[in-house]
Amino acid sequence: MKSIWDEEYDIVIIGSGFAGLSAAIEAGKVCPSVIVLEKMPAPGGNSSISGGLFAAAASPLQAKDRIIDSPELMLSDMLAAGLELNNKELARIVAENSTEALLWTIKELGVKYKPRLSHLGGHSVARTYNTANTSGSGIIKPMLAKCRDLGIPIRLKTYLTQFILSKSGEMEGVAVREDYLFPNRKSGVLKRIRAKRAVILATGGFSQDKEFRVIQDPKLTEEIESTNHQGATAEGLIAALKASATPIQLSLIQLGPWASRDEEGFGVGSMFSMLAGFPYGILIDVRTGKRFINEQADRKLLVDAMLSSDRESIAIVDQKGGQHASTLDQCLKRGVVKKFESIKELAAANTVPLAPLKETIEVYNSLIEKGRNDAFGKPLPIDLQPIRVPPYYSIRLTPKIHHCMGGIQINAEAQVVHIETHRPISRFYAAGEVTGGVHGASRLGSNAIPECIIFGRIAGINAAAQKPRP
Amino acid sequence: MKSIWDEEYDIVIIGSGFAGLSAAIEAGKVCPSVIVLEKMPAPGGNSSISGGLFAAAASPLQAKDRIIDSPELMLSDMLAAGLELNNKELARIVAENSTEALLWTIKELGVKYKPRLSHLGGHSVARTYNTANTSGSGIIKPMLAKCRDLGIPIRLKTYLTQFILSKSGEMEGVAVREDYLFPNRKSGVLKRIRAKRAVILATGGFSQDKEFRVIQDPKLTEEIESTNHQGATAEGLIAALKASATPIQLSLIQLGPWASRDEEGFGVGSMFSMLAGFPYGILIDVRTGKRFINEQADRKLLVDAMLSSDRESIAIVDQKGGQHASTLDQCLKRGVVKKFESIKELAAANTVPLAPLKETIEVYNSLIEKGRNDAFGKPLPIDLQPIRVPPYYSIRLTPKIHHCMGGIQINAEAQVVHIETHRPISRFYAAGEVTGGVHGASRLGSNAIPECIIFGRIAGINAAAQKPRP
Repeated sequence: MKSIWDEEYDIVIIGSGFAGLSAAIEAGKVCPSVIVLEKMPAPGGNSSISGGLFAAAASPLQAKDRIIDSPELMLSDMLAAGLELNNKELARIVAENSTEALLWTIKELGVKYKPRLSHLGGHSVARTYNTANTSGSGIIKPMLAKCRDLGIPIRLKTYLTQFILSKSGEMEGVAVREDYLFPNRKSGVLKRIRAKRAVILATGGFSQDKEFRVIQDPKLTEEIESTNHQGATAEGLIAALKASATPIQLSLIQLGPWASRDEEGFGVGSMFSMLAGFPYGILIDVRTGKRFINEQADRKLLVDAMLSSDRESIAIVDQKGGQHASTLDQCLKRGVVKKFESIKELAAANTVPLAPLKETIEVYNSLIEKGRNDAFGKPLPIDLQPIRVPPYYSIRLTPKIHHCMGGIQINAEAQVVHIETHRPISRFYAAGEVTGGVHGASRLGSNAIPECIIFGRIAGINAAAQKPRP
Repeated sequence: MKSIWDEEYDIVIIGSGFAGLSAAIEAGKVCPSVIVLEKMPAPGGNSSISGGLFAAAASPLQAKDRIIDSPELMLSDMLAAGLELNNKELARIVAENSTEALLWTIKELGVKYKPRLSHLGGHSVARTYNTANTSGSGIIKPMLAKCRDLGIPIRLKTYLTQFILSKSGEMEGVAVREDYLFPNRKSGVLKRIRAKRAVILATGGFSQDKEFRVIQDPKLTEEIESTNHQGATAEGLIAALKASATPIQLSLIQLGPWASRDEEGFGVGSMFSMLAGFPYGILIDVRTGKRFINEQADRKLLVDAMLSSDRESIAIVDQKGGQHASTLDQCLKRGVVKKFESIKELAAANTVPLAPLKETIEVYNSLIEKGRNDAFGKPLPIDLQPIRVPPYYSIRLTPKIHHCMGGIQINAEAQVVHIETHRPISRFYAAGEVTGGVHGASRLGSNAIPECIIFGRIAGINAAAQKPRP
């Protein structure tokens, strides 16, 4: 009988972002034949264009800065933002392994980070490392180099159309279209690739899937922009569901509060808001000149507040605050951030009523000088200073669709869980944004990279430990 | 070749609650052979033990009471409670057809309702009919009688194990276990039943499925009680997902704020709170003696408030308020509601601090006498009176899992939508709580029965209009 398979590998990995490449590296270290399939014409997916922010609890930089942190504190921040919809076991694995995963990227991959931590919204303390180039590509490129060293091919333009299960319900391989031209689903040539040990799904989220996301959350119509790359669509997730994976929390889709209204996608403005505007500046409703929330709240709280009462939001920061964003020059060049010599000019250009804005800034400054928590409960890091030194910077904001908290269910071993039996589907693993449960109602900024790397590595190690089928 | 089928009907309906029986009646009127399959040993499912509350916009009783209402107002109430996660097209169908569906139960089935409307939480106006026996059985029994008249068999102890699709992807029939003994999934005899025209899924929600619900919302552990009957489990939903239905919003699961701590399940206390305690009384935190929310808020807001700050909640009402609940005598007999001659006695028995409780009642009474909205924004119906006339009644409350807003996706024609193509699966319909999208984040009380009847009838009519396969 002729085999239905065109090719055969020990381990087949779908997706070449943080999760897929982490899995590939761990699997490739012990296993002779591993392949990574990527539907787009370039590797790295959404990970490449992310901000390269990495949350780690009890890290070396925290020790240096005498910041007291622990996995327990990180976990409690995750559960608070997640409204306890998190799968606590999975969330705990991320918190407890975050620093180990960070050190792995440094020691094993040679990733370079800036020497200063950032304090992102919803985190109790500063625990976020920044890649040296302020981008996820600072991790993806060393990962790709490592895959090259290990002899792991990344086959581009290769699109998963279907998982193939054995009669006994084990994951056996995948049907793909090679030479696929995104987004033409009829393009390319059908092929079947067998996995002797296991298949790992790491296809990311579906923020750019305009049909599927609006089914899950009818508010997310096609008019709403996304920070994600065009390939962030739902086919991998759907293929897994068709193979009896369990859908969880698909309607929990996060918008990023920090994106610029004056550029497309994630752009350069998002990092400006995250690193400077929100922690060191204030968020203002243009119509009133007033603050309306703790700028360091988690993303869901921020977006809910920005979208209520038809607010038009801008973030304002002064010269000292602006220094914290390494994307400042790019933002100014692209017109995403505007520069003003006075608050009066800033108010006029943004059509903010001047008197209330001045009062807002004065009240805020006096709170900082007194070292007091203000009415909105914004945490006051030690290096926070009054907004007083010109030039002043402003960025116009609009929430953009950013992250899918939901996905398919996995267990602590990164095994995909069957929808009927609630037991693992044999030889089937998944990691990263295609899975659900770690973050609950709201993912905290900089928690995605540790999640992807930690569960990607678990998947890779466990897949390689499977006994190969004949 | 021997047929794989043991039996054949024009239309096969799974589930014998409001949705399934409504579908059966409409289908049976035009179609020679319809069968209803029910896994439990008795028909009616959760519908039988529901409160029999039916929301209808612009109804005859509203006209008589000069209550100004419209489908638009009902729709806007649904979207507000649903946090606009509702599928608006489906929600609109419920609002626009609610009165027609109510009249259908009266004219076609002979259902008897009380002559007075109730005003349930989250509804802008009183628009809720009550069945004469304060129970969903007041509708289920006439539906069963109608099925008998139409010659439609209700086959009990018949458990759906799998949907069977044709090679072209059409719904063709079901595999079941006959003589099934809930919850033993190995019991009974396997059989295959073919549907010449269509299959209709109406298996309800999964509030009692302790494994599946905690996957979707990890807070809903097995310690938390449910108001639902034991058969409210997820197998029908899961079978549909395995047949390529689209899961939507499965993590949106509602707790009912009105259930008694002193009895199991929905009991008799729930209706007391809904009809008397919340609209005509006050909700108090036992530890403070103070109100903490508008008692007529929607269920999600109420439960969120009850669960925050470890509140222990009781509802209090006086003699006049208590009259609005027809279950009062049963509640007193079972000890679910307690009766006191004075507020002092009530406070002592419930360990509420007396002085703050008295003050709370005085403030509340004075607001009612002035006809003013209070700080919590409780709507003040014209017949609302101060809490002043002994005896006083109290009920101890605890949130219980009540309703699954999520389920499988259907379109306006009650067709099940395919997860990959986003197009209807041919000859496959669904209605009621097994579907998702109508209610978004929170279903308003008394909106389930119109939803089930409206989409059940649509499914039945459309299924009967299918051309039979040879």
